[in-house]
Amino acid sequence: MTKKPHPQPQDAALIPRFAGLPTFMRLPMQASPEGVDIALVGVPFDGGTTNRAGARHGPREIRNASAFMRKIHHVTGVAPYDRAVVADLGDAPVNPIDLMESLRLITGFFADLKAHGCIPVSAGGDHLISLPILRALAADGPVGMVHFDAHSDTNDRYFGDNLYTHGTPFRRAVEEGLLDPKRVVQIGIRGSIYDPSDLDFARANGFRVIFIEEFITRTAEDIIAEARAIVGTGRTYVSFDVDAIDPAQAPGTGTPEIGGFSSFEAMRMVRGLAGLNIIGADVVEVSPPFDVSNMTSLLGATLMFELLCVIAAGFGD
Amino acid sequence: MTKKPHPQPQDAALIPRFAGLPTFMRLPMQASPEGVDIALVGVPFDGGTTNRAGARHGPREIRNASAFMRKIHHVTGVAPYDRAVVADLGDAPVNPIDLMESLRLITGFFADLKAHGCIPVSAGGDHLISLPILRALAADGPVGMVHFDAHSDTNDRYFGDNLYTHGTPFRRAVEEGLLDPKRVVQIGIRGSIYDPSDLDFARANGFRVIFIEEFITRTAEDIIAEARAIVGTGRTYVSFDVDAIDPAQAPGTGTPEIGGFSSFEAMRMVRGLAGLNIIGADVVEVSPPFDVSNMTSLLGATLMFELLCVIAAGFGD
Amino acid sequence: MTKKPHPQPQDAALIPRFAGLPTFMRLPMQASPEGVDIALVGVPFDGGTTNRAGARHGPREIRNASAFMRKIHHVTGVAPYDRAVVADLGDAPVNPIDLMESLRLITGFFADLKAHGCIPVSAGGDHLISLPILRALAADGPVGMVHFDAHSDTNDRYFGDNLYTHGTPFRRAVEEGLLDPKRVVQIGIRGSIYDPSDLDFARANGFRVIFIEEFITRTAEDIIAEARAIVGTGRTYVSFDVDAIDPAQAPGTGTPEIGGFSSFEAMRMVRGLAGLNIIGADVVEVSPPFDVSNMTSLLGATLMFELLCVIAAGFGD
Amino acid sequence: MTKKPHPQPQDAALIPRFAGLPTFMRLPMQASPEGVDIALVGVPFDGGTTNRAGARHGPREIRNASAFMRKIHHVTGVAPYDRAVVADLGDAPVNPIDLMESLRLITGFFADLKAHGCIPVSAGGDHLISLPILRALAADGPVGMVHFDAHSDTNDRYFGDNLYTHGTPFRRAVEEGLLDPKRVVQIGIRGSIYDPSDLDFARANGFRVIFIEEFITRTAEDIIAEARAIVGTGRTYVSFDVDAIDPAQAPGTGTPEIGGFSSFEAMRMVRGLAGLNIIGADVVEVSPPFDVSNMTSLLGATLMFELLCVIAAGFGD
Amino acid sequence: MTKKPHPQPQDAALIPRFAGLPTFMRLPMQASPEGVDIALVGVPFDGGTTNRAGARHGPREIRNASAFMRKIHHVTGVAPYDRAVVADLGDAPVNPIDLMESLRLITGFFADLKAHGCIPVSAGGDHLISLPILRALAADGPVGMVHFDAHSDTNDRYFGDNLYTHGTPFRRAVEEGLLDPKRVVQIGIRGSIYDPSDLDFARANGFRVIFIEEFITRTAEDIIAEARAIVGTGRTYVSFDVDAIDPAQAPGTGTPEIGGFSSFEAMRMVRGLAGLNIIGADVVEVSPPFDVSNMTSLLGATLMFELLCVIAAGFGD
Amino acid sequence: MTKKPHPQPQDAALIPRFAGLPTFMRLPMQASPEGVDIALVGVPFDGGTTNRAGARHGPREIRNASAFMRKIHHVTGVAPYDRAVVADLGDAPVNPIDLMESLRLITGFFADLKAHGCIPVSAGGDHLISLPILRALAADGPVGMVHFDAHSDTNDRYFGDNLYTHGTPFRRAVEEGLLDPKRVVQIGIRGSIYDPSDLDFARANGFRVIFIEEFITRTAEDIIAEARAIVGTGRTYVSFDVDAIDPAQAPGTGTPEIGGFSSFEAMRMVRGLAGLNIIGADVVEVSPPFDVSNMTSLLGATLMFELLCVIAAGFGD
Repeated sequence: MTKKPHPQPQDAALIPRFAGLPTFMRLPMQASPEGVDIALVGVPFDGGTTNRAGARHGPREIRNASAFMRKIHHVTGVAPYDRAVVADLGDAPVNPIDLMESLRLITGFFADLKAHGCIPVSAGGDHLISLPILRALAADGPVGMVHFDAHSDTNDRYFGDNLYTHGTPFRRAVEEGLLDPKRVVQIGIRGSIYDPSDLDFARANGFRVIFIEEFITRTAEDIIAEARAIVGTGRTYVSFDVDAIDPAQAPGTGTPEIGGFSSFEAMRMVRGLAGLNIIGADVVEVSPPFDVSNMTSLLGATLMFELLCVIAAGFGD
Repeated sequence: MTKKPHPQPQDAALIPRFAGLPTFMRLPMQASPEGVDIALVGVPFDGGTTNRAGARHGPREIRNASAFMRKIHHVTGVAPYDRAVVADLGDAPVNPIDLMESLRLITGFFADLKAHGCIPVSAGGDHLISLPILRALAADGPVGMVHFDAHSDTNDRYFGDNLYTHGTPFRRAVEEGLLDPKRVVQIGIRGSIYDPSDLDFARANGFRVIFIEEFITRTAEDIIAEARAIVGTGRTYVSFDVDAIDPAQAPGTGTPEIGGFSSFEAMRMVRGLAGLNIIGADVVEVSPPFDVSNMTSLLGATLMFELLCVIAAGFGD
Repeated sequence: MTKKPHPQPQDAALIPRFAGLPTFMRLPMQASPEGVDIALVGVPFDGGTTNRAGARHGPREIRNASAFMRKIHHVTGVAPYDRAVVADLGDAPVNPIDLMESLRLITGFFADLKAHGCIPVSAGGDHLISLPILRALAADGPVGMVHFDAHSDTNDRYFGDNLYTHGTPFRRAVEEGLLDPKRVVQIGIRGSIYDPSDLDFARANGFRVIFIEEFITRTAEDIIAEARAIVGTGRTYVSFDVDAIDPAQAPGTGTPEIGGFSSFEAMRMVRGLAGLNIIGADVVEVSPPFDVSNMTSLLGATLMFELLCVIAAGFGD
Repeated sequence: MTKKPHPQPQDAALIPRFAGLPTFMRLPMQASPEGVDIALVGVPFDGGTTNRAGARHGPREIRNASAFMRKIHHVTGVAPYDRAVVADLGDAPVNPIDLMESLRLITGFFADLKAHGCIPVSAGGDHLISLPILRALAADGPVGMVHFDAHSDTNDRYFGDNLYTHGTPFRRAVEEGLLDPKRVVQIGIRGSIYDPSDLDFARANGFRVIFIEEFITRTAEDIIAEARAIVGTGRTYVSFDVDAIDPAQAPGTGTPEIGGFSSFEAMRMVRGLAGLNIIGADVVEVSPPFDVSNMTSLLGATLMFELLCVIAAGFGD
Repeated sequence: MTKKPHPQPQDAALIPRFAGLPTFMRLPMQASPEGVDIALVGVPFDGGTTNRAGARHGPREIRNASAFMRKIHHVTGVAPYDRAVVADLGDAPVNPIDLMESLRLITGFFADLKAHGCIPVSAGGDHLISLPILRALAADGPVGMVHFDAHSDTNDRYFGDNLYTHGTPFRRAVEEGLLDPKRVVQIGIRGSIYDPSDLDFARANGFRVIFIEEFITRTAEDIIAEARAIVGTGRTYVSFDVDAIDPAQAPGTGTPEIGGFSSFEAMRMVRGLAGLNIIGADVVEVSPPFDVSNMTSLLGATLMFELLCVIAAGFGD
Repeated sequence: MTKKPHPQPQDAALIPRFAGLPTFMRLPMQASPEGVDIALVGVPFDGGTTNRAGARHGPREIRNASAFMRKIHHVTGVAPYDRAVVADLGDAPVNPIDLMESLRLITGFFADLKAHGCIPVSAGGDHLISLPILRALAADGPVGMVHFDAHSDTNDRYFGDNLYTHGTPFRRAVEEGLLDPKRVVQIGIRGSIYDPSDLDFARANGFRVIFIEEFITRTAEDIIAEARAIVGTGRTYVSFDVDAIDPAQAPGTGTPEIGGFSSFEAMRMVRGLAGLNIIGADVVEVSPPFDVSNMTSLLGATLMFELLCVIAAGFGD
């Protein structure tokens, strides 16, 4: 692929990290997806949250923390900004007062990205945002998913008959034909449950659910090898809920569960996704009002950088 | 009025304040409004918030801070628990995912209180909760209102066509015939505005709007004398948004505006409402995730105690 | 065992977790131990603390965080509320000004629980509370103990001749015949010491002391297998000081020691206690004023849930 | 009074404020009161606290914040270190586990200061520490007192028969003949009360109690003029509980009461005490675990500096 | 003045305040001063700080908080974005490692703004930044200054022979002929001093120094009337150090001094500057690492909005 | 080695840890290095910081947290205060405004320690302080170094031509002949990089760079065995940047990198250095303004204690 000079992050050895506007990775912001290979976007919506809201502030603080990121991956050597055109595309439109309209607005925004051939890496927002994103990205057929989370997010309803919450997106996605359940793997599941049937939907449909108790008996490499086998070469979405990680490393989230895997294991697993056919990814449930010392926002930014490098690796040198 | 022994708060000279369950004022909690004169209730809903959510956590933290309250007002000498039957009636039902259903649920809860002759003093929640409360309490005709706030909350719509937000409750309440706009006074209004017409609705309908700039040229007594004249002897609701108070004293709120009146002036004004025909009151927009050292929750609890004493004063000795 | 319908926690899919009173696990609170199999209780006393006080606020904040707990254990499938009658019995009486009276009051409260056949799972308070609890539960003969802690808590005296502090409970318990020292195992001990003789008492009496340095060379399962062998089938108390866990996961405690085991290992070890003859358990030294983002309170609540499930497992289906 | 060169604070224009050990005012610490005119001392004891402990950490954090103080008073021009020999005498001995022993230890320490002719300015600690200090300083006859506080601290007993708490020191001091109640003025009293009789002791004995509601109708100068008339020319103790000041300015305290006077009014009133026969002073109830941004510790340090200047003014140039 | 449609802030009733990039006032950012009447800029430099650094993070957090600002001033009715072309011009270049180079870089940046006829309203940074700004703006002759501060900032040297710190800018500015000392007024000065001669330079040169002790005997209007008389109709700079305001309202600053004027008085005084010949303004010493709940950043943003409205008022409708 | 009674820390079983002045380890402070074997010193300088400053406050808060340390190492049994004369030597002189002068001042201070035969264990400050320390300690020839860090700190220049920052000390040290690059091992390196050549200098000169990715495939013992082989028996400096440790355990630092080794591994590695010829050590980049619950300061104090025990072990019993 021949390329013109690509947009580059501001150089922290010239302009201090604390200066200037906090775009994702200190990249230029641009309004149009035209010509962009990988779009970094925010989805500041937490209207699907059943307990502690706050993830609406995730995109701003993840952008802020992303100023700590430099330009090249120290292990893989991938230089994402040389390989692909990467830009901050701003935030998807949302309506904090109207859940159903927000779902429509978000889908519209991502449909436009898809129409321009952009691969989005999104910062949530609560986990419900994965549903409208999938409605856009999987509009032409179900996709596989590598899903890191403490929770399966395949519940049916909340508070009576509410179908759309951050606890239900992937049940809806299966029902709507957006996910191929045989190509879904969930990693890190744990925590007390409402009912013995809580995971019946996931299992009956063929999700591979890897509890943390299984996880710790294996290596991160081993887990990811299995995940790769499950999603195979087909189109795959990656969804990373930061509550998959232990609350000591990711305190800024709405539904913490004691006893998750570590942020280091998270990074290693994300790195292990290189070569998959990734059509998009998200990092969700970073909730700054509950964060300490911006630790979770920094984690979110780091995971976005890892995802970016994995996706950019597919663009060749 | 003859009375049997009334429920009393736990005695902090016997059971330390940090012990036991944090009900409002350390009063007994009871499920039924039967026999209750004044009901302390929570309305943990912030789905009408256009910016920073968090007021859903208000009732729990205000209850927690209310353990600091003792039994008798040190200025007026009112002993509210001797004069009236006061109890913690728990929280109104809400649905954090569904704004319209929450409005219905809240109205239903307060209609039941009203049917039992209870006067509710509520802890929000965002300011939208005043609307469903008024739908219950003013079901039989419009009421007056003493409204403390930095914002008039009479905007029309947000994010397109959304009628119900924490910026619109009192426009809706006038339109629905719940408020008699000639008997409404708003105290403490300030802050930059969207449009020169922002306050047209309030003024055109006859609200008396007292900006902080006018406030500081007068005394709190003087302001309250005018407020009393405006609402007169008719049925009156009192709504206290903590953002009326300066953010240094009320940091834990979603839409702080620099330069409010002081918490001391707030207490003096509330005390000045004694003798009015108060049918209910609320303290809203306490948002614990943004609070520091629980200061705003303590302020909310103190304002509820002041309101309680003012209302209890009407029950005679 | 035939049972009538048991009390159940409030359902978070109907009533949001942030609503209502924060009882332990959102269970009903009841004043009497009559008919209760497992009693969740608070002991808000930190008068034995030699350095940073604050654990007196532990019960309230652990209750608050316990709203995150659901109903069934995701690994063992134990549904504790179906197997046993579980309730929040409130807080033991304490006197923050009078250590000796507090010891008497606490013992009296637990003697009553024991008399009713309740198994208590307690939230401290500092570690001194284990002594008056043991005085009640082991009144009829010494018990074994599985003790998780960074510190042995078998010092002799502080500040001259003070026998009763959070650093001395288990020396006193041995001296008073409450603990069978041959059936005591301490897990996670670490940190600089006052004197080479600091652990002489524990060792001379036959405690098995497992330092963290030994711990990390073995698996949690292995450790627990040894612990089970040590306490055997006799009556056993479980005492969990949260400072056993690394300060990054348990910052809210009075005497943090760098380098503890993880919260995940803690949960696994507690799960491994199933089938022991547990007569009571506590989680102590959660100190909310030093906590961050309520992380340690959530950990305390989670450990209580794990302990509850282990004990409830003994009640059959 | 002829003097040799006096000890001086470290010069912040040479050694930055963040460097070196945080003694009070960056003065030399010395072990002996020999030759010291004014002793700055800590009393790290909060065992008399009935609700939220933490004031034991007051002396350390007040010392830390006192690095912000410079050398000369900007209004009065008093250069305290030129007029008097001022030193940090360290902390009084205390026993956090034993209230009665702590009272004895504190009295002993202050008796020694008094024997050497030192005037102590103390950083608490909770308000109970004023009692053992007065036992030392008023051993030879009752003294007057200017007392700034939200609470009268003249209750009788707590938790049954406990005579010694931070709510009772001045009742005890009157009973023990340490205070001349006719020469006591209390400024800033407010907040809900337990019982109508709460202030009977103070009033019956002749304390002048100035509620905040009276305070705000007068000027700080006027209040202090009255206070001066009350205490007259006799020996006088000054006791400043930081909860006298509004919680927005003094959040780091155990028993905050909404609606106090301002820190500026506090400083003006302390300045107004110049010329009185002050035999000692304290600043109590600074509780760092509840503080925000060290604001209350800075306030405590500033009040100590103001007190120091007032006392030093009596030493002539 | 004929004008094309001016850039406008994003509309918070369409795009929530928490969405999008945090430019100043949600205005468009632009790289060139071409065509800009009033430039909002950041100067993220705190290398002149002698005690607690952190003001380098001021511009980012003030921008973040400025999302709370709406479009029109509620008292004066000034619509600044209609009257003038206002834009976020980004941050001045700085070098956190090299003070002298930073001074040069900052001066260069502001010289360019001046060359384009922009009036800058700057967010610091520490107070030293006013010096390089004045070197640019007063290159063609000395200007007057209205200076709000707790400190005169006219010291001579620190740490030996260092001439350039945040405690010395205005002495240097006088020496360099940038300020006309007869047209300088300092408002809010207070706090202990190093030496009786501390203010000699200011006074000897003719600064009008208004201590807080004088301030509180007069009204804010009266103070500003005097300030207006002092600076007259000549070119005038406005410098606002947030530590002028009480630390309870402005905790996030490096050198807090207890007892400042209120944020409301600050706003009133800034409003009173309308009609002066203001050539530039700054708000400095907002230090986010020491802030609580972003209160001081919000204050900084509000003061910038007030300054903006005052300056825009000069552009006519 | 014959010794007189050595200075000992204050006994926490007599004087509570929260009492008294916070010297390092509660040891006596002394002004002169005369007779001191191991000097604990602070270097409160962060002028080399390219992003978030704050490490200037490290020494004070590490001293504060060091009150948690007791007297004897629980694993090795080393009683450092019996083996060696250890004292708190105060802080090195620094100038927060002048980087080059600070380098000179720090070197002078350490040269004096070296001249007296003291081995310094220092608390930073940012990592630039290692350079002036090495200039003193390695004045007579290059030394080896065991370096724990997330960053190699061998960059060349920042912000144009600035040679001296916290990202460049070890390149300078090699260039100046202070380090023998063949005897340098760096442990824990990770994080995104500016350029593929970032580590060329380190590698070309012969540093052994152990990335975290290699680290986790080996044991801490194995790593340290290699480190010992690399530095051999020659004079060796130990430099510990707390950002080597995971940000969940060391949040209070300026340049956190997700995914470090644990504090427990850190302690084990430091213990493994016993027997090396250590001429000095530092713990740097503890930045209290970004810390949570003083966790990182406690970690810093614990690492200093571990280093102290390792060095004291060399003094024989």
